[in-house]
Amino acid sequence: MNIIEVWYEFGSNYSYLSVNRIGDLARSRGVAIKWEPFLLGPVFKSLGWETSPFILQEQKGRYVWKDMQRQCAKFGLAWNRPSTFPRRALLPMRVAVLGKDQRWIETFSKRMMELNFVEDVDIDSVEVVSQVLKNLGVEAATTIEQAQSDANKQKLKDQTERALTLGVFGGPTFFVNGEMFWGNDRLDDAMEYAARGRVSQLVNS
Amino acid sequence: MNIIEVWYEFGSNYSYLSVNRIGDLARSRGVAIKWEPFLLGPVFKSLGWETSPFILQEQKGRYVWKDMQRQCAKFGLAWNRPSTFPRRALLPMRVAVLGKDQRWIETFSKRMMELNFVEDVDIDSVEVVSQVLKNLGVEAATTIEQAQSDANKQKLKDQTERALTLGVFGGPTFFVNGEMFWGNDRLDDAMEYAARGRVSQLVNS
Repeated sequence: MNIIEVWYEFGSNYSYLSVNRIGDLARSRGVAIKWEPFLLGPVFKSLGWETSPFILQEQKGRYVWKDMQRQCAKFGLAWNRPSTFPRRALLPMRVAVLGKDQRWIETFSKRMMELNFVEDVDIDSVEVVSQVLKNLGVEAATTIEQAQSDANKQKLKDQTERALTLGVFGGPTFFVNGEMFWGNDRLDDAMEYAARGRVSQLVNS
Repeated sequence: MNIIEVWYEFGSNYSYLSVNRIGDLARSRGVAIKWEPFLLGPVFKSLGWETSPFILQEQKGRYVWKDMQRQCAKFGLAWNRPSTFPRRALLPMRVAVLGKDQRWIETFSKRMMELNFVEDVDIDSVEVVSQVLKNLGVEAATTIEQAQSDANKQKLKDQTERALTLGVFGGPTFFVNGEMFWGNDRLDDAMEYAARGRVSQLVNS
């Protein structure tokens, strides 16, 4: 089966679009998804930025919120600009990296995104994450304990290091057979490439 | 008639895509184009950057050339990575701002882009620009003299200042009824918005 990797983080607004869209797209094309949560903060630091470029570049930041509003309307997704951006999401990201190959990873990820970008909830909270896990039928206390273990903390760091090694500079980023596609604007191209093995209108290099 | 403004510069690779695509798209939708050449250099400087972010961010830079190759294949456009990037284009930009409301502006702009991004030619040259103008049936010597007049130099500066005031932070950028759309990836949305006055799937703010 063809595979698309999605590299994403819960604080990233454009990841919100792709995390919501990718499941149905992949199922309709017979493509398997590999969920790859990673931290954007260290990636931005590697570029010399203390925070999101949407904060550092005032004009771009202003535009991004209009663009998000339009993009969400276009894709039929709910949207409310978060009161905190970028929102800390360390605990849910650790849970995501722990469960990245579990059956609940897609629903968990979509729900975390919804809490951040629709319900404007602080998601870096044991209470919030526990409730989401419980609603998915996942044993919350054990999962959160495992997520906060040293081994799993290191797993998220390794994952982020791997993103940097792969050349990731923002989120979401997709990989298909080693080919990188950056941004929700390239999700359809990446999916086409995954579904057809090779895609006539895409030049493989 | 509905109008789409395209803000572009000859050194900008993503502007190459839009300058080539916008004419046919606009004609098929009954939309008029307002050509708005401006200099990206001062815009990048206003963001604290000495040159293109594709140079300053090594990982992103590497990605951009693969993306351009794929995008050009997708849109059926020729492509050769320029040996110099970003390429100086002050003289052709001055000619473009002089002629921005002339009948030859679209063909002139497409040809300049082609020389930069397909033929890898130094376009900041009196000889090259003269030849292009002549081929378009435009009197070259007078046009270049007018382009290099103090008044026209100031016109390009004013145009760039206007871009900054409008909130432009990169190229290409489109405006439709005061709504900003950034990047070739938003050309279709901008055109839809221009063609229909308002677009159901786009939220106007």
